[in-house]
Amino acid sequence: MTKLDVCLTPALISLFDVEEYIVVIIDIFRATSSICYGIENGAAAIIPVAEVEECEAYREQGLDYLLAAERNGEVVTGFDFGNSPFSYTKEKVAGKTVVLTTTNGTQALHLSRNAKKVVIGSFLNLTSLSDWLKTQDKNVLLVCAGWKNNFNLEDTLFAGAVVDQLKDFNFKLDDAAIAANDLFQIGKNDINQYLKKTSHGERLKKLGIEKDIEFCLQVDLTTAIPILDGEKLVKLDK
Amino acid sequence: MTKLDVCLTPALISLFDVEEYIVVIIDIFRATSSICYGIENGAAAIIPVAEVEECEAYREQGLDYLLAAERNGEVVTGFDFGNSPFSYTKEKVAGKTVVLTTTNGTQALHLSRNAKKVVIGSFLNLTSLSDWLKTQDKNVLLVCAGWKNNFNLEDTLFAGAVVDQLKDFNFKLDDAAIAANDLFQIGKNDINQYLKKTSHGERLKKLGIEKDIEFCLQVDLTTAIPILDGEKLVKLDK
Repeated sequence: MTKLDVCLTPALISLFDVEEYIVVIIDIFRATSSICYGIENGAAAIIPVAEVEECEAYREQGLDYLLAAERNGEVVTGFDFGNSPFSYTKEKVAGKTVVLTTTNGTQALHLSRNAKKVVIGSFLNLTSLSDWLKTQDKNVLLVCAGWKNNFNLEDTLFAGAVVDQLKDFNFKLDDAAIAANDLFQIGKNDINQYLKKTSHGERLKKLGIEKDIEFCLQVDLTTAIPILDGEKLVKLDK
Repeated sequence: MTKLDVCLTPALISLFDVEEYIVVIIDIFRATSSICYGIENGAAAIIPVAEVEECEAYREQGLDYLLAAERNGEVVTGFDFGNSPFSYTKEKVAGKTVVLTTTNGTQALHLSRNAKKVVIGSFLNLTSLSDWLKTQDKNVLLVCAGWKNNFNLEDTLFAGAVVDQLKDFNFKLDDAAIAANDLFQIGKNDINQYLKKTSHGERLKKLGIEKDIEFCLQVDLTTAIPILDGEKLVKLDK
């Protein structure tokens, strides 16, 4: 029986032998949602980096990349756009390589790089991702990017949504997977409403990105599965 | 407003500045349940140690301590008893100092030692503990001892039970506290049944300690609150 485990924050990833797993990286607000949408819309690749300075370094290489960097919810001067999924439309990203600044997501990716495969999940590609995972016959580790290594509810709820689709398919769940699924059952009828009570929800509301949040909570808007290939995320060839 | 935070495993404790909190250590199966029961029954003190060898060292000092040590669910030869709460009756422990071997609980205690106060929680002293916390006007951190740094459901559910008693008393909850409380709502009507689906439940069942589990899930059997005083746990003078 294959394992279906949930790593509730990147700070716990050393407890898992990632080489035994397909890892799914989850950073719902907003990195992995934007990545799913960008890859769906034809971005050639998305390169996640941790810091604005690393993003800037790509410009200095003179390459024709789109650079996405935000600080405190504002696009950093001189960059093409920020982390809003609305920036990742076909018109803007088709055929382009995007360098995306995301601290939590990049850390989770880095720590997972020795996994069998590393793919990107969000509510946008939930069913497509889950259907693919069912066919792989491999252990699955759902890694919540969290917030500065803290547990957060939005990433955990999405992990629970994946567990909900996989749990009847010969997987053995760890306690965190059971908990994530139970939390998803509580929140699933109105995830946005459920998350409003969280601290992170308050923080994001202050940034004025409620429309981004609504966007990121849409289920099955896309079917592409971004997969890590070297340092780049590209579209998985299913 | 004071904070009510939940640390889901000792591996996450460095994310919290423990000096700002009263810390509650939670290791439901079975260390903190046995400690609550032992202190309730008049043990002069309980000294938690991580390894059987440390426990043995107390005997070599020639002190009149009761030594509790188990391996694989069996009392280690030459020790007085194991970790079953049924060993901590008045007849056995009144007036005595007990040295208790508990890897996960000792680690959690050690990492929390700089907190304002460190107390011990279990379902046995739930309401007494919660009532006391309400009167303290301090930040509260509920530390789940977990299993080898992994998240586990039984400790998290108890954290949720404490949150349930405190949440209407001017505390600000973090996401883990919200999640723990929601999980408690799901499980509270039959916690034993809820926990049967967990991996830890299976492990404990193999050890043949179902009666211990039932005992540890009794709510409000005791009122004593064990508190850390140096290296010893003693009864809090309320």
